[in-house]
Amino acid sequence: MSKSSITIRPDNSPIARNSPTSRRTFLRNSAAMAGGTLASGAMGSSLARAEPLPVPDSVKAPGRIIEPKAYGVPSKFESHVVRTRSDVLVNKQNLSDWSMTPLQHQHGIVTPNGLIFERHHAGTPDINSEAHRLVIHGMVKQPLQFAMSDLMRYPSVSKFYFLECSGNTLTDWTKAASNTVQQSHGLLCGAQWTGIPVSWLLNEAGLHPAAKWVLFEGADGAAHTRSIPIDKVLDDVLLVYAQNGEMLRPEQGYPLRAFVPGWEGNVSVKWLRRIKVADQPWHFRSETARYADPMPDGKWRQFSFVMEAKSVITTPSGGMKLKGPGLYEIQGFAWSGRGKVSAVDVTVDGGKIWGPAVLEEPALDKMLTRFRYRWNWDGAPAQIASRAVDSTGYVQPSVEEIGKVRAIAGFVQHHNGVFPWSIAASGDVKNAVA
Amino acid sequence: MSKSSITIRPDNSPIARNSPTSRRTFLRNSAAMAGGTLASGAMGSSLARAEPLPVPDSVKAPGRIIEPKAYGVPSKFESHVVRTRSDVLVNKQNLSDWSMTPLQHQHGIVTPNGLIFERHHAGTPDINSEAHRLVIHGMVKQPLQFAMSDLMRYPSVSKFYFLECSGNTLTDWTKAASNTVQQSHGLLCGAQWTGIPVSWLLNEAGLHPAAKWVLFEGADGAAHTRSIPIDKVLDDVLLVYAQNGEMLRPEQGYPLRAFVPGWEGNVSVKWLRRIKVADQPWHFRSETARYADPMPDGKWRQFSFVMEAKSVITTPSGGMKLKGPGLYEIQGFAWSGRGKVSAVDVTVDGGKIWGPAVLEEPALDKMLTRFRYRWNWDGAPAQIASRAVDSTGYVQPSVEEIGKVRAIAGFVQHHNGVFPWSIAASGDVKNAVA
Repeated sequence: MSKSSITIRPDNSPIARNSPTSRRTFLRNSAAMAGGTLASGAMGSSLARAEPLPVPDSVKAPGRIIEPKAYGVPSKFESHVVRTRSDVLVNKQNLSDWSMTPLQHQHGIVTPNGLIFERHHAGTPDINSEAHRLVIHGMVKQPLQFAMSDLMRYPSVSKFYFLECSGNTLTDWTKAASNTVQQSHGLLCGAQWTGIPVSWLLNEAGLHPAAKWVLFEGADGAAHTRSIPIDKVLDDVLLVYAQNGEMLRPEQGYPLRAFVPGWEGNVSVKWLRRIKVADQPWHFRSETARYADPMPDGKWRQFSFVMEAKSVITTPSGGMKLKGPGLYEIQGFAWSGRGKVSAVDVTVDGGKIWGPAVLEEPALDKMLTRFRYRWNWDGAPAQIASRAVDSTGYVQPSVEEIGKVRAIAGFVQHHNGVFPWSIAASGDVKNAVA
Repeated sequence: MSKSSITIRPDNSPIARNSPTSRRTFLRNSAAMAGGTLASGAMGSSLARAEPLPVPDSVKAPGRIIEPKAYGVPSKFESHVVRTRSDVLVNKQNLSDWSMTPLQHQHGIVTPNGLIFERHHAGTPDINSEAHRLVIHGMVKQPLQFAMSDLMRYPSVSKFYFLECSGNTLTDWTKAASNTVQQSHGLLCGAQWTGIPVSWLLNEAGLHPAAKWVLFEGADGAAHTRSIPIDKVLDDVLLVYAQNGEMLRPEQGYPLRAFVPGWEGNVSVKWLRRIKVADQPWHFRSETARYADPMPDGKWRQFSFVMEAKSVITTPSGGMKLKGPGLYEIQGFAWSGRGKVSAVDVTVDGGKIWGPAVLEEPALDKMLTRFRYRWNWDGAPAQIASRAVDSTGYVQPSVEEIGKVRAIAGFVQHHNGVFPWSIAASGDVKNAVA
C-alpha cells in the first residue's frame, strides 16, 4: 500500500508523516549498532507537524468477545503462512506424501505445531489415545504392554530438538528446483518434545545380554518400521507424547511416537505401537529400498541415520525482494545431529569471504539455532550462503565436497550441503544452486 | 475403559496381557530410579502367551491425506484441552473479559499459541498488519512513525519469557474458589517472543534528557494505556510481533505489542499503536482504579509492576484423581519476574517438611521453569504445595506472610502465595486454600 497516504493521530497532536521513515530509521539504527556505513540514499525526516491523523477503526468499537471454550487460531491476515505440499515433486499417490514448514516465516527457534511439516507413507490415522497400546517384546525377560494412561503416569522429560526428514533438500543438489526455503528446506522443525526415555522401559522389561537392535513399528496404514541400534536407544531415544506443550498432533504421531534425537526423521516412528528387541537389524524396505545412500562405487550405504551439521539462510531467501541498498539482517537456522552448533559463517560474495554470524541463545544440543548477520548491501548482485560448524568440529560441506565421498544422482537423501541464494540488482532473491 | 479387555498382536505372536501392567511397571521403575520403596499392592506380570491380538483399525487402511495448504489442528480426541472463561468470576459485560490457559494439560515450558490465556478490556480487534502504524513522540528530538514492514526489517531478538496477568489467582486468596489449576493459575503462559528492543527505536528518536516515563497505547476499543519507567524500557522492553515462531495471534496483540519482561501482563500493551515519552507518569485509570494494591494502612500502592517469584503444582492438581498408593511424579511451574528460578521446594505433608525438586533445563531468566519431584504416596490424606526461590534470594511467601505487608480483602491483585492441593484417601485432588 502507499505509505504516503497513511496518517495517524498520536495524542491529538496535528502531525503527519511527510516521507517514508523505514529506511532512514533502520539505516541509522543498524549503522550505529553494527558499525556499518550509511548507504547514500537515506531518506528524510519521519514526522512533522501537519494535518490531524485519523483514529483507527479498531479503537472506535469493541472487538471480538471471548468464546467460552476455544482453541486459538492465527490472524486472518496471516493465512499465507501455511504448510504446503511440494511444488517440485509430484507424488504418484496420496498415500505417501509430505508437506513443508514455512521456514521463511518462522521467528525464533520453536516451530508452531500447526506449521510442522508432515511426512507419512499411508496417510495420517486418527487414533483414539484411550484405545492405543504399546507393546515391548522380543529379547526381553518380561514382555510389557502399556496404555497411554500407564505411560503418562511415568516421570517424563521435556527436550528441545530439531527434527529433519532425510529427504530434506533432495530436490536441489545440483540445480535450482525450489523457489523458496519452504520448498528446499521445509522438511525441518524445532520443538520441545515431552516423553519417557525408552531406556527406562527396556530396563523394566529386562534386556537379554545379546540384545543389539530395537524395532519401532507404527500403527499407520504402512505399519512403518525401522531398526535402531540399541546403544542409541539406551542413550537418548524417547517415547514422546507431547510437542510444544500439548499432546502430539495426529500428523506428528498422536498419541505416541519414538523420538530419536539428531537422526533422520523417519526413524522417529510415529503412531508407535510396538518395540521389539533383537540381536540384529531387520533390513526393512525402509532400510534397503529407501533411506539408503548411494556411494561412488555403486553400492548403497544402509543406516546413515545421523543428520550432519547443516544451515540455511531463511531471511532473505527465495521469493523475497530487498527494498534497495542498505543494511539488512541476514537470518537463518543451523543444526547438527551430533551436538550443538558452535559457529556459523556467512558469505555475501559467493564464498570468497566468510564472516562469523551471531548465534542467538539458547543454542541447545541437537536443536535449531538461529544465527544473525548484519549486512550492508550496496545494491550490486550478490550471492549469500551460510556454513555451520558443530561441537565435534565438523564443518558443513559444499555439495562438491559431498560428491567426493558419495554418489549424487537424482533425488538422493541426506543433503546437508551449503545452500546459496542470489540477490539481483532488482533486489529479487532466488535459489542459486548450480 | 477396561484394560483387561484389550489385546494386541505384536509380530503375529499369540500373546495377551493377563493383568494390568501400569502400576507394577511404574512402581518398579520409579522405585529403582528414585530410591523409593515399592508399595505393597504392586500387581502381577504384564504379558504372557495366550490368545492372538487384533491389529488396530489404523493399520488396516490408509489415513487422511495431506491438504495442499493447511494449518494443523489438535487431535479430535484432545478437544477437552481448551482455554476456558472463569468458572468463579462472572463479568458484567463481555467487553472486559479473560480466558485461562489449561496448565494442567501443559507439557514442557512452551504454551501453545492456541492455548495462551486471553485478557482484554474491550474485545479483540482484527487489525490488518498492512494498515497498522506505530508512532513514537513526546519528549524526543524526532517523532517517528513505522509501518509493520518498517519494523520487521529491523534486526530482531527472540526471547523465552513467561507472561502472567496481575490478577492471576486473585479468586483464591483465603478460600478455595477454583476447582482446577486452569481456573486458579491459568492467566499465565510461557513462550518465545520475537521483536525489537524499544531502546533501539528510542535511540533513533533521540530521548530528551528529562525523559522519565514512557506511555504505551493500544489500538483496541479500550485504547488501553500504561505508564512505564524509562529505565525498564531501556533495559529489556521489546516491541514484539511474533510468539512461538509465528506472528502474534489477534488475542495476543497482532500485529504488534509491547513486551515488558517479568512485569504484570497488562503493561505489555497489545495492539500497540503509540509510544509517548514524558517526564512523569500519566496516572491512567489502569494505574489508579485498577492494578493497584491495597496496603494495611488503607492506602493503595500504584505501580507494583513486577511479578514476584511464584510456583504451583500442576500435576497432580484440582480435579485429578490418583489411582491408588504408589510412586508419582509431582510436576509444576515456577517463575520470577526478577530473574531465574534457583530452587523449588515441595511439601507433601502440608508444610511441615519441604524437599528440593529437580529443575528441568533450560531454566531461563523470567521464563517458566518446570520442576519435578518424585513422591511415594502411602494412600493417606495428604496436602502438597510448592515454594519457589529466585536468583535474588527471594522466597515465595505464604498468603499469611503476604497479609502482613498488604491488605488482602476480596479480589486483590498480585497473589504469588504458596498454593496447596489436598489429596483424599480416595485419590481425589482438591484446592486446599483455607
